Amino acid sequence: MKALVYHGPGKKSLDERPMPELAASTDAIVKVTRTTICGTDLHILKGDVPTCEPGRILGHEGVGVVHRVGDAVAGLEPGDHVLISCISSCGRCDYCRRGMYSHCTTGGWILGHRIDGTQAEYVRIPHAQSSLYRIPAGMDEEALVMLSDILPTGFECGVLNGRVQPGSTVAIVGAGPIGLASLLTAQFYSPAQIIMIDPDANRLEVARRFGATACIDNAHADAFAEVRKLTESVGADCVIEAVGIPATFELCQALVAPGGTIANVGVHGVKCDLHLEQLWDRNIAITTRLVDTVSTPMLMKTVKAGRLDPARLITHRFGLNEILSAYETFAGAADTHALKVLIEAS
Amino acid sequence: MKALVYHGPGKKSLDERPMPELAASTDAIVKVTRTTICGTDLHILKGDVPTCEPGRILGHEGVGVVHRVGDAVAGLEPGDHVLISCISSCGRCDYCRRGMYSHCTTGGWILGHRIDGTQAEYVRIPHAQSSLYRIPAGMDEEALVMLSDILPTGFECGVLNGRVQPGSTVAIVGAGPIGLASLLTAQFYSPAQIIMIDPDANRLEVARRFGATACIDNAHADAFAEVRKLTESVGADCVIEAVGIPATFELCQALVAPGGTIANVGVHGVKCDLHLEQLWDRNIAITTRLVDTVSTPMLMKTVKAGRLDPARLITHRFGLNEILSAYETFAGAADTHALKVLIEAS
Repeated sequence: MKALVYHGPGKKSLDERPMPELAASTDAIVKVTRTTICGTDLHILKGDVPTCEPGRILGHEGVGVVHRVGDAVAGLEPGDHVLISCISSCGRCDYCRRGMYSHCTTGGWILGHRIDGTQAEYVRIPHAQSSLYRIPAGMDEEALVMLSDILPTGFECGVLNGRVQPGSTVAIVGAGPIGLASLLTAQFYSPAQIIMIDPDANRLEVARRFGATACIDNAHADAFAEVRKLTESVGADCVIEAVGIPATFELCQALVAPGGTIANVGVHGVKCDLHLEQLWDRNIAITTRLVDTVSTPMLMKTVKAGRLDPARLITHRFGLNEILSAYETFAGAADTHALKVLIEAS
Repeated sequence: MKALVYHGPGKKSLDERPMPELAASTDAIVKVTRTTICGTDLHILKGDVPTCEPGRILGHEGVGVVHRVGDAVAGLEPGDHVLISCISSCGRCDYCRRGMYSHCTTGGWILGHRIDGTQAEYVRIPHAQSSLYRIPAGMDEEALVMLSDILPTGFECGVLNGRVQPGSTVAIVGAGPIGLASLLTAQFYSPAQIIMIDPDANRLEVARRFGATACIDNAHADAFAEVRKLTESVGADCVIEAVGIPATFELCQALVAPGGTIANVGVHGVKCDLHLEQLWDRNIAITTRLVDTVSTPMLMKTVKAGRLDPARLITHRFGLNEILSAYETFAGAADTHALKVLIEAS
């Protein structure tokens, strides 16, 4: 089969690889029909994720059709259409029982990381029963690819951890796909304001179309001063960090209102300053989270009900044969205006 | 009347001052019977709190007897025995309605800070109705002085924010009066372990008497390694920072388990490093809080019921005339082994 293989920092190619086989009775083999590329894949290619070794098939998002199941897999059969979660979870360890699937002791984010991933014609999914979701008939499967990772990430790490409430003021720092996923799902809770902050004019324009009530171009404006103006000098109740660098996390600390929350979504590679001398008495919370995908079934219902349209995030489409071009388009988002690139695997 | 007056960094004296008068219809004048000294008073004396101006009577803790009340004060009468909250709150502003009394737009921590405080024979209490608590007959008023500030601070900022639960592992960094207040009130929730960490052997001995299940002298042992040993290498579910310096806050970051909380109680004067590169995917929360004293009535019930004995924190007693010695004893805690020093004001 064809598969996009990581060959060490800066190196990848579309290779011919053997079909995956069942390795445990709890596994399933899924024929991937659609997949996509995540910012995390670009991090791996930069060499930022040393736990991902050369030879690894990348990809942790996708939908497909169950091809084979192990003997211990109940509730799934060959031919079932399934959504693949970016998080594999046994459902039985202490963390899983607390709903912290991201920290499953034999799972977590392993797909396209510690085991071969979804940017291929077929993929082996461990703990298949709790890591695949049957797709109800009649749903737009293309849109559901966005539910493998970015929608639950924006929702759980940003909106739920950020405690977005009716009437609250939300500031989202970073209008990339994840920030936009937070923007879309924050609207479930009817906040009074959603302020998007990003230096890219195109992304802010998308944010406006997606429901932002105010957009701040922080390449040209002082985001702190603008948010003060928009909030009667109080700050934002919920600040979502969707970039992952010290400068943006420090901006979040300046933007948060007394009693508010900074919900970190960004993947950080270095430490940053925490201004406890200003924050110790502000009654704030700072949260971090690797997505648990506990909200996937709920998000699927919102899509089915028409409350959420994740297909809006898809800007480009490619075949698996064109995946190297898809990577170029996605990595060059500043010029190509790519948000999510869809790859039709078969 | 006699009052302990701050005269600028390093300077204080017991002065003769005029009796306070009602300044608003919502004020009360309270005859102070007992007060105490807080670590915050020492901070003021070091010049760390520039919003506290020379000439200020210090003190934000105490019990007393209502002497006069303004026309708008309902439910309180001269002769009533009252607990004075360190937080004054109007009960009506947006923050008060959310239970964030610490951020009351016309109150908060003002006593012995922006207005004259309790280390005196009499004190004016603004917003008396929501800032004083009637003491039920028959209660030990000496013990209740501990409920003006340190017990609600240890409980709200440490235990409640830290989400201590039955079976959880709690690590408290700092065994001063506030850390000990967290230790006492954490036991309401039956955690599996409470690990106290402090470099002072005497304080650790007190902590052991107060219910700590393990004590780590971090002047001589590696607290990180010891906590790993005690927690099967997982870390603590709830880490309470009760010191207020970068080194201890950074230790907390190393101690927290995936899914856990770092509840900051310490007063910080400088920024510190936040290791987001290690914490971004650990599903943790960091909380800060200036005590709201929302739990004061509840804590009073626990004292009345014998579930909490805050008098255990009192190590020394002085008359108001001896308050300068009381300050020396409290500031020299490493030698005097003082926890809280009680001052009988009248």
